[in-house]
Amino acid sequence: ARFRRLAVLEEIGTILHWDAATQMPDGGVAPRSDQMAELELLRHGLLTDPRLSDLLNAAAESDLGPWQEANLRLMHREVRFATALDGDLVEALSQARSKCEHVWRTARARADFETVRPLMQTVLDLTRRSAEAYGEAFGLAPYDALLEIHAPGLRADAFAPLFDGYVAFLPGFLERVLAKQAAGGDPVHPRAAPVDRQRALVKRLAQATGFNFARGRIDTSAHPFSAGYSGDQRITVAYIEDGPMFAVMAALHECGHAAYEAGLPANWARQPVGRALDMVVHESQSLCVEMQAGRSPRFLAWLAGEVRAVLGDDPAYAPDNFRLHQQWVKPDFIRVDADEATYPAHVILRTRLERAMLAGDLPLGDLPGAWNAGMKDLLGIDVPDARRGCLQDIHWYDGAIGYFPTYSLGAMLAAQLAEAAYAARPEIAEALSRGEFSPLMGWLRDTVHSKGSSLQADDLIASATGRPLDAEAFKRHLTRRYIEGV
Amino acid sequence: ARFRRLAVLEEIGTILHWDAATQMPDGGVAPRSDQMAELELLRHGLLTDPRLSDLLNAAAESDLGPWQEANLRLMHREVRFATALDGDLVEALSQARSKCEHVWRTARARADFETVRPLMQTVLDLTRRSAEAYGEAFGLAPYDALLEIHAPGLRADAFAPLFDGYVAFLPGFLERVLAKQAAGGDPVHPRAAPVDRQRALVKRLAQATGFNFARGRIDTSAHPFSAGYSGDQRITVAYIEDGPMFAVMAALHECGHAAYEAGLPANWARQPVGRALDMVVHESQSLCVEMQAGRSPRFLAWLAGEVRAVLGDDPAYAPDNFRLHQQWVKPDFIRVDADEATYPAHVILRTRLERAMLAGDLPLGDLPGAWNAGMKDLLGIDVPDARRGCLQDIHWYDGAIGYFPTYSLGAMLAAQLAEAAYAARPEIAEALSRGEFSPLMGWLRDTVHSKGSSLQADDLIASATGRPLDAEAFKRHLTRRYIEGV
Repeated sequence: ARFRRLAVLEEIGTILHWDAATQMPDGGVAPRSDQMAELELLRHGLLTDPRLSDLLNAAAESDLGPWQEANLRLMHREVRFATALDGDLVEALSQARSKCEHVWRTARARADFETVRPLMQTVLDLTRRSAEAYGEAFGLAPYDALLEIHAPGLRADAFAPLFDGYVAFLPGFLERVLAKQAAGGDPVHPRAAPVDRQRALVKRLAQATGFNFARGRIDTSAHPFSAGYSGDQRITVAYIEDGPMFAVMAALHECGHAAYEAGLPANWARQPVGRALDMVVHESQSLCVEMQAGRSPRFLAWLAGEVRAVLGDDPAYAPDNFRLHQQWVKPDFIRVDADEATYPAHVILRTRLERAMLAGDLPLGDLPGAWNAGMKDLLGIDVPDARRGCLQDIHWYDGAIGYFPTYSLGAMLAAQLAEAAYAARPEIAEALSRGEFSPLMGWLRDTVHSKGSSLQADDLIASATGRPLDAEAFKRHLTRRYIEGV
Repeated sequence: ARFRRLAVLEEIGTILHWDAATQMPDGGVAPRSDQMAELELLRHGLLTDPRLSDLLNAAAESDLGPWQEANLRLMHREVRFATALDGDLVEALSQARSKCEHVWRTARARADFETVRPLMQTVLDLTRRSAEAYGEAFGLAPYDALLEIHAPGLRADAFAPLFDGYVAFLPGFLERVLAKQAAGGDPVHPRAAPVDRQRALVKRLAQATGFNFARGRIDTSAHPFSAGYSGDQRITVAYIEDGPMFAVMAALHECGHAAYEAGLPANWARQPVGRALDMVVHESQSLCVEMQAGRSPRFLAWLAGEVRAVLGDDPAYAPDNFRLHQQWVKPDFIRVDADEATYPAHVILRTRLERAMLAGDLPLGDLPGAWNAGMKDLLGIDVPDARRGCLQDIHWYDGAIGYFPTYSLGAMLAAQLAEAAYAARPEIAEALSRGEFSPLMGWLRDTVHSKGSSLQADDLIASATGRPLDAEAFKRHLTRRYIEGV
């Protein structure tokens, strides 16, 4: 009953967050921040109530089934997180993040890292103290303790070989892809399309993935995201008139997230074990839809026709050009605009740098230089300024260290899941060539969504794909799609 | 600090309420109801915490200024309401209301009172028990205890003479108005207008009243309402293609509510004394804008031009016809569609019936007949069925007894305030002829909004208008507007 209350508070928080990003006028910023702080205070109060620990200890004595056991384990984990930091540190970090994030917006626009550096130093120092406190509570190294927030059981040493494998693979791969692209010539870009037409297309695609508009909405925000809960899912996309495919692919991505939430076990709703497992698995679900299925040749062939039907004829939507355009690989500066082949390079650079910063091995004054050197090393490009360099992402300035790796581990998991799915159900591929996601979604629901948090991540991945997470399926996927062209 | 937290919880509740009415998909209904219940539980917990009573008692010993004293008095009042009912009764009433309201929707559509009668009996019985418990806590008769919820200090015996005065005035007044209207002929109705044009007009009018779109929004809902708080006001209107003036006048009404909230004393924000005083005063603010100013001849002359400019030319917008259309009086069945002259008859009928029901003097089986007899008596019309009779309003079926009188007391107060405002600042009338609300709004801010809840209602009204609330200004207003035509 207590965790049910916590879940209800979290639902309230996700709606307020969605509202702030899609509806709220400027005058609502200050009161909303107080409202979010109040919800956090209530949540903290419920989790740190000494009677809760008594109840959890009593529950441990009972005869529990496997889901109940997993539920209890996750409850203990939440209590441990809530009690690990003292209130002063939480408050100081929250204030420092909010100030730093505010200044970062201007600093980024001006490509001026030095303006934000002192505030970022404060955020970093306080984040290090939090990481140490979490680490002590969980018996983990500081960086692993931050990873643990986003993905229980995720450890830096465990995924390092996967990232190293990709780094070793990348140069040879890139050389071949870029040569192949150069031989074929650049694709024609789609013409601008009015937002209301794009919106119609987004709606059609969302329905194809199974998104249910009686149990959710799609709105507009500066950056696409997924919020809400089963029964009331709120996803957003951003519309760019000049780049009509951006909203479409963002919608596929967010619909992958939404399908995961919709497919969670209803009889464990509002319990920790009924939740999505972690941010790696969440990202794998969005990328299964957007990247594995959504940019597969057979789906793109169908999609080109849909796009033409809704946005009108355009040479860019000729099947071959459309596919080339959607699969174009280009080492570039901005992570969020990166293609799936070079995206992990962005993540790996950030992972290296944030580990070094957290360990105190990289003074902040050296960050821009280290960033630029890393981009040169990994992708062979020269970063022109800090706006397109170390100022581009909000994460660090908002205190989020230990989140970046989940993006690319999610991409690797998506490839591994898709490989297993295609092997298990041949009809998945055929259905995608008709724009039908349901066989794929059915497999994902059976193997991933319906498991909630009943399994640990390693066990879930092994049960779904027959082995632990590795980088092999992802590399095979890149090779097939971008070199072999199948 | 504790009442600040309560206010923050209330802000969250008002946004969730707005969201449910304007954004939420059907699948969100059940979780939203749990979220609202959780907020209520938290609020109840904060208000009934025994330490709060200790703090309030300690505060009473301190040296307090008048605002602090009023604040403390209102805090005691909230605690008293929260502790007056036992949890079982609150829960039973909440469930009964929700079931009854659900069945009422079907019963109304089918004009079938008998279907909903047993559920309404349960709601009535539980409401009576609540009223008795509140009455005991406050030393009030049961009906007065229900009035006290919506307007501190409001007593049935005190406003009875105002309602009686109107009832005595109405027949002679109606006879003259209807004869005058019959002599002139019916007005031409406006043509249908597309919703996006209506929306543009609504925006323009809202801005004229001072509504600030950087600190609020206007959206669409089935019934217009006003939600949010200063800094983030959420008002809604409903658009009817065939009746383009409905949304415009609804917007003026809701903007009056919003202006009140926006003008509350900022240095007492989130404290009981910083709140709007009561529902009578709130309604007076919406009606000052919509009825007193918004349907005054000088404003309508300006408005006709605006409407033509935005919706296009239409014989209905010729100045004389437009004014006649906006000031048309017609005894009819539906309260929410009633003109301002006959509206109080609807309210007085409901007030009589709900007092009798609460006292046990009117068995529910006799309600439809008593309703129809009352309509015949007050407005001389024959109610054709219960859909246009006692099933038309949600209030009773949702357990709201003691709310109706505030509508017409608000209308009387609006007339009294407007009379005082015009006398105090002659520029108000002149500005309205140019579509400018700011002098009126300035006067209302000075005399009403900025006072928050620092004064009791009687004192606020006396300080603003020089005398207690009566029905005289309202009757003078009706006579001037509908008979003398000025």
